[in-house]
Amino acid sequence: MKVAVFEWNGIRRVGQVDEAAQTVAPFDLPLDAAREAGVTVLIDRPLPPTGTPIALSDVTLCAPVPRPRRNVFCVGKNYHEHAQEFSSSGFDSSAAKGAVPEHPIVFSKTPESVIAAGAPVKIDPSVSEAIDYEAELTVIIGKGGRNIRAEDALSHVWGYTIVNDVTARDLQGQHSQWLIGKSQDSFCPMGPWAVTADEMNLDDAAIRCWINGELRQDSNIKLLIFDVPTIIAAISNGLTLMPGDVIATGTPAGVGIGFNPPKYLKPGDKMSVEIKGIGRLDNPVEAF
Amino acid sequence: MKVAVFEWNGIRRVGQVDEAAQTVAPFDLPLDAAREAGVTVLIDRPLPPTGTPIALSDVTLCAPVPRPRRNVFCVGKNYHEHAQEFSSSGFDSSAAKGAVPEHPIVFSKTPESVIAAGAPVKIDPSVSEAIDYEAELTVIIGKGGRNIRAEDALSHVWGYTIVNDVTARDLQGQHSQWLIGKSQDSFCPMGPWAVTADEMNLDDAAIRCWINGELRQDSNIKLLIFDVPTIIAAISNGLTLMPGDVIATGTPAGVGIGFNPPKYLKPGDKMSVEIKGIGRLDNPVEAF
Repeated sequence: MKVAVFEWNGIRRVGQVDEAAQTVAPFDLPLDAAREAGVTVLIDRPLPPTGTPIALSDVTLCAPVPRPRRNVFCVGKNYHEHAQEFSSSGFDSSAAKGAVPEHPIVFSKTPESVIAAGAPVKIDPSVSEAIDYEAELTVIIGKGGRNIRAEDALSHVWGYTIVNDVTARDLQGQHSQWLIGKSQDSFCPMGPWAVTADEMNLDDAAIRCWINGELRQDSNIKLLIFDVPTIIAAISNGLTLMPGDVIATGTPAGVGIGFNPPKYLKPGDKMSVEIKGIGRLDNPVEAF
Repeated sequence: MKVAVFEWNGIRRVGQVDEAAQTVAPFDLPLDAAREAGVTVLIDRPLPPTGTPIALSDVTLCAPVPRPRRNVFCVGKNYHEHAQEFSSSGFDSSAAKGAVPEHPIVFSKTPESVIAAGAPVKIDPSVSEAIDYEAELTVIIGKGGRNIRAEDALSHVWGYTIVNDVTARDLQGQHSQWLIGKSQDSFCPMGPWAVTADEMNLDDAAIRCWINGELRQDSNIKLLIFDVPTIIAAISNGLTLMPGDVIATGTPAGVGIGFNPPKYLKPGDKMSVEIKGIGRLDNPVEAF
């Protein structure tokens, strides 16, 4: 099942997406339930009945989790070819020990950096002139837990979505820890919607990113160095994961700093990230 | 003015502390206002009248911001002697470029790691056997903003408190980015209360930490490498700070890994952190 958060007639709703019909049928839920929690209002709730489908072209999509209750967890350097390109870029302040990490590199993005599909990523040359895209499979936790074992981890997943982990490379490098470079306002496009865990094939799903129609990233989520169960086990090691937590799992090769010279984002660019089985997340780039 | 969050007769309140009298006088506020926001409910609100003072010995203190609305911002390696001891410890995965950073190192701790004065820090040998304390001056933001200039920054501060930035050194090193090692459950003792900005002397205030009565850290907040205005300017560079945001500013020399052999925390230890002008934050260490 694909589940979208959207606004229609000024009201935010959660609904079931029918891609063939290009509609979304709103769930019968308290009207304020979806405001910040988005799709995570469905966790631990019997699936509510849906109302009359609305054309997707008539709604404004919101991020599947519009305002996570704490920072979005993110994994770095989690595809081999990307680990290599990032290590060679000069911006990798964080791992002197070679391209491929021995343990997942986990950092965060602020909840307020989250924006919806279609919303602009705003870039401000007075802050950074080295802004980059990163296509990422993203986990939405349904069942919390501490010290979750990898073999049990997938039972803690409610569903998946896409994050474009937009990054100010210069700030990422300067500050050594990545929070500031990763949490710039509008730097966490998420969507277009979520897909429930039962429909996702983690063993084979293409992940691609285009900038202005040029295919830049073209990989498969099966190539993650640390797979989803391993990531969940690592993060929950002494740190209680909670329902509604969001985890972006890392990006494959082909980001802007992988090119020589680097291909940074500029106002007017159009970004598209697609993961097979989820959908396509489009965001324009605008000047702040 | 010193402001505490506390529970009394099962109800969480915010009140004005009178240290001489050892009482706290509850503000007349809606009863649910303090639950997560704590002292930050006073931001942008006329100071409410207070009721009958209650003996501090009769209340249970809560963290001044019991549940921050997003991860706590933290600064690393922000005193010269500590930068040196950490760089030499073997756990500094994050800065190959020498002991003293050129820009503030900013990372985060999850809101759920926050605990009150008096509450136990729980350590779990199956997760980490290298757990350390860090005494830190902590800023509570009152007025949000983006690209705040250092010369304007102090007008954005509502007040100050103390954080003990408890850290699993092995996890901090392994994962390269510090989030997991810093966000272990119960690893963010905060308190005992907050002091409003007008009463804090940033130019001269001793910061000290004792473990089982042994003085381990003994410095002064005037020795911060990046001072409070510089930190606020750096974090708000492209990232909108919000009222209620919490920023721990870094720890001086004398943490456990500064000793040879390292002096890690163990169950039964008693930690005390004191900053002149704020108060003393006591927390015991217990086995998980």
